[in-house]
Amino acid sequence: MKRYVALAEEIADIIEKGTLRPGDRLPSVREASRAHRVSASTVFQAYYLLEARGLIVTRARSGYFVAQTIPRKPPTVDGASKPLEVSVEVDVSRHIDAILAASTQPDVVPFGSAFPNASLFPWSALGRTMASSVKRMEPRKTVEGLLGGNLELRRQIALRYGARDMRVDPSDIVIANGAMEALHLCLQAVARPGDAVVIESPSFYGALQALEMHGMRAIEAPTDPRTGIDLDALEHILKGQKPAACWLMTTFQNPLGGTMPDAKKRELVALLTHYRTALIEDDVYTELYFDERPPKPAKAFDSDGWVLHCSSFSKCLAPGYRIGWATAGRFAKDVARLKLRSSISASVPAEVTLAAYLAKGGYDRHLRHLRTFFAEQRDAMLLAIGRYFPQSTRATRPAGGYFLWVECDAHVDTLALHAQALKARISLAPGPIFSSRSEFRHCFRLNYGHRWTAVVEQAMQTLGRLLSSQRAPREVQRAPKAKIARI
Amino acid sequence: MKRYVALAEEIADIIEKGTLRPGDRLPSVREASRAHRVSASTVFQAYYLLEARGLIVTRARSGYFVAQTIPRKPPTVDGASKPLEVSVEVDVSRHIDAILAASTQPDVVPFGSAFPNASLFPWSALGRTMASSVKRMEPRKTVEGLLGGNLELRRQIALRYGARDMRVDPSDIVIANGAMEALHLCLQAVARPGDAVVIESPSFYGALQALEMHGMRAIEAPTDPRTGIDLDALEHILKGQKPAACWLMTTFQNPLGGTMPDAKKRELVALLTHYRTALIEDDVYTELYFDERPPKPAKAFDSDGWVLHCSSFSKCLAPGYRIGWATAGRFAKDVARLKLRSSISASVPAEVTLAAYLAKGGYDRHLRHLRTFFAEQRDAMLLAIGRYFPQSTRATRPAGGYFLWVECDAHVDTLALHAQALKARISLAPGPIFSSRSEFRHCFRLNYGHRWTAVVEQAMQTLGRLLSSQRAPREVQRAPKAKIARI
Repeated sequence: MKRYVALAEEIADIIEKGTLRPGDRLPSVREASRAHRVSASTVFQAYYLLEARGLIVTRARSGYFVAQTIPRKPPTVDGASKPLEVSVEVDVSRHIDAILAASTQPDVVPFGSAFPNASLFPWSALGRTMASSVKRMEPRKTVEGLLGGNLELRRQIALRYGARDMRVDPSDIVIANGAMEALHLCLQAVARPGDAVVIESPSFYGALQALEMHGMRAIEAPTDPRTGIDLDALEHILKGQKPAACWLMTTFQNPLGGTMPDAKKRELVALLTHYRTALIEDDVYTELYFDERPPKPAKAFDSDGWVLHCSSFSKCLAPGYRIGWATAGRFAKDVARLKLRSSISASVPAEVTLAAYLAKGGYDRHLRHLRTFFAEQRDAMLLAIGRYFPQSTRATRPAGGYFLWVECDAHVDTLALHAQALKARISLAPGPIFSSRSEFRHCFRLNYGHRWTAVVEQAMQTLGRLLSSQRAPREVQRAPKAKIARI
Repeated sequence: MKRYVALAEEIADIIEKGTLRPGDRLPSVREASRAHRVSASTVFQAYYLLEARGLIVTRARSGYFVAQTIPRKPPTVDGASKPLEVSVEVDVSRHIDAILAASTQPDVVPFGSAFPNASLFPWSALGRTMASSVKRMEPRKTVEGLLGGNLELRRQIALRYGARDMRVDPSDIVIANGAMEALHLCLQAVARPGDAVVIESPSFYGALQALEMHGMRAIEAPTDPRTGIDLDALEHILKGQKPAACWLMTTFQNPLGGTMPDAKKRELVALLTHYRTALIEDDVYTELYFDERPPKPAKAFDSDGWVLHCSSFSKCLAPGYRIGWATAGRFAKDVARLKLRSSISASVPAEVTLAAYLAKGGYDRHLRHLRTFFAEQRDAMLLAIGRYFPQSTRATRPAGGYFLWVECDAHVDTLALHAQALKARISLAPGPIFSSRSEFRHCFRLNYGHRWTAVVEQAMQTLGRLLSSQRAPREVQRAPKAKIARI
């Protein structure tokens, strides 16, 4: 965490605990600089952040003061989901596409979007690299070495694994048209129509749609919003139902935002290796971490080749280029063959451009900016939830990515909320699209990957108003509140 | 056909009929120019072509003479295939990928390749267009309007349909990662695992692989090398076995090279419409026609939306860009949804580049060059077959595309031939990879989409030698020869 963000957190905590109260004057920048042993500019940045979050106000020629109305910090979601342990035919509701399409309209506040703000990416640098790369591109390259994809790009990806202490052979990497295709190919490599596949609950709707498309059954396993799938429950499923595979997001899970700790990842891989069951690991948000070091994927603990690790550049570098990959362990050759048969290769100009961009350097600098931006956006959104949403609302606090998960009172209907919000040109991703049984009707996913503006602030206020207007039946109102723990 | 090619054909015919005999002197260029009412340069080009084909020789300061050894014109394949009319589980042999991979190695003569020579395409113009297109690309475009693909590209494709008297709504076009993905998506839109799908016999191995991948069954229907699938047999299948769909190449079929006449295409669509059965029409070679006017696809006769027409720019403009499309009639929305779910979108830089290239003009000029080139290559290859292959060999004479089909004596084993040829660094596509039951063992496909050089000529000679060395069992040698008809 950046020093100024840490300082802002520290001061926010003091305010929220009531040590500093509404109207109180904050130390001057010089005083705070001395007290916290940081530069004046760090204090400025921290105060600026607190101001943006509505915790403090400036008064001309007087200094900084605690705001009269303090936005509450939102309580956070606790406890694993408890889906039934039966496999069901996946029949994802027809309206998912409509819901997602609505969120990409230019005049709609994109809380429901799957994508971050498109202006966050280094388009000029990519464009320049593409211009020079296609000029140098040898025609033969477009038809040779098709199996697995552009070798230089695979080598660059292997180098990035290497920087995280993972030894990956470039020839085990298969380039695909984005992670989505890589995931489909991996699924087809390890499971057949009719097979059962374990997924999280809630899970990425793309996984539900993939299972439906290939005629496979979903087994939804209980999932803790902070630490991922329940391993005891998973072992029970592996023993009893003999699924063909698991499809999990172990880092910054979509939609929950949680990350499985290293030790649990290691245990997960050991368990699946013991049962000789493949893990399809969807790891597309891993580069967007907010802590000092990147989380390891489960693949890092895979010595026997049962993990098919999928990622892409679509969330962190080049949306729309459609370049992703699978590092598919013992299934690498099968995945390469499936790729060749189903769509031949990825787009060669995009492949050579990303290979050249990665070779040149500059990617990590871009990523650092992106991480800082998303971390600040997350905080802004959590504050807005605290400020505007009903008191009983709970939310996750992800350590990476650009989604958070909101859990409302049981009576709230987020499908209805979505329809109401859309009239006000605000989108959100209602809970039921993350479940094969339309569960999580009282939950929704928010995207904080867009710039915080007055319109966004206003939209959060509107959402809060709409949530409050959904009346609870009397029994639910009287139900005792669950103890709230922080993630 | 170009005038000089026509003149060369005319003279070749005179030579082959024996009117002009080995050693005879040809008319001088000036004489021929007067006699045929063409320019001197046309005569020069015709004589040059005949010389390249080995039919005539020049003697310094003496003129042109008929060669002492006249290469025979190859007889051509006749009669429809007669596969059993039962559906079978598709289990395409494992070695297809190896066979195809071998053909893309730089030092192997690529008769077995699926691709034409990569240097035939307008790479500089495409590169310049890409450089300027990505500079102007709006970031938002990478994530909005995803359903169906880039609208400007779809509009340009609709305009090309329009130029052929086909009215297509751009919103019915779905952009995919090449025709291969488009075909897979169409297949998934109209058939489920376990369903039966009618294909040609022989058929494109990609269709066999697709059916295998999706757990569908193939019904191979009798197919005439000149005019395509037998409609009586098809109706019999439609009545009896109720297939979910047909997957056919009605124009320049791969591997045969044949084209269904317009009237038969019209009848085909009427038949399928009557039985409410979808036609997946793989039409990727249509732009590579050698006659005056382009053939119409079956889609042109589809008033009820049962034809899913798939094509791409990979064979005629931009290999490796991976841009294809499906115009899927009543299934357009389903195909668009499947595309979004399985790989989101095509590569946006490739989409905007091709849209800009098509808008600028120049595509048709490029296509004219390509057509002339392929037509000449076809003739050169047919002459080489006549010159070097055993007398009983038969071959098709396609009116477009860059494949022809060779049928040898029944005893010939083209899988063995492939292995022998590869040792001599020559590839070919053996017949069994075009059949779910490994039929057509005595046939193979040749790619003539590469420049005719001394190495290529030599390779044809080597193939001929290898063919001759495959000894026939006595009974086969004595079997009466079938009457040979021209296509």
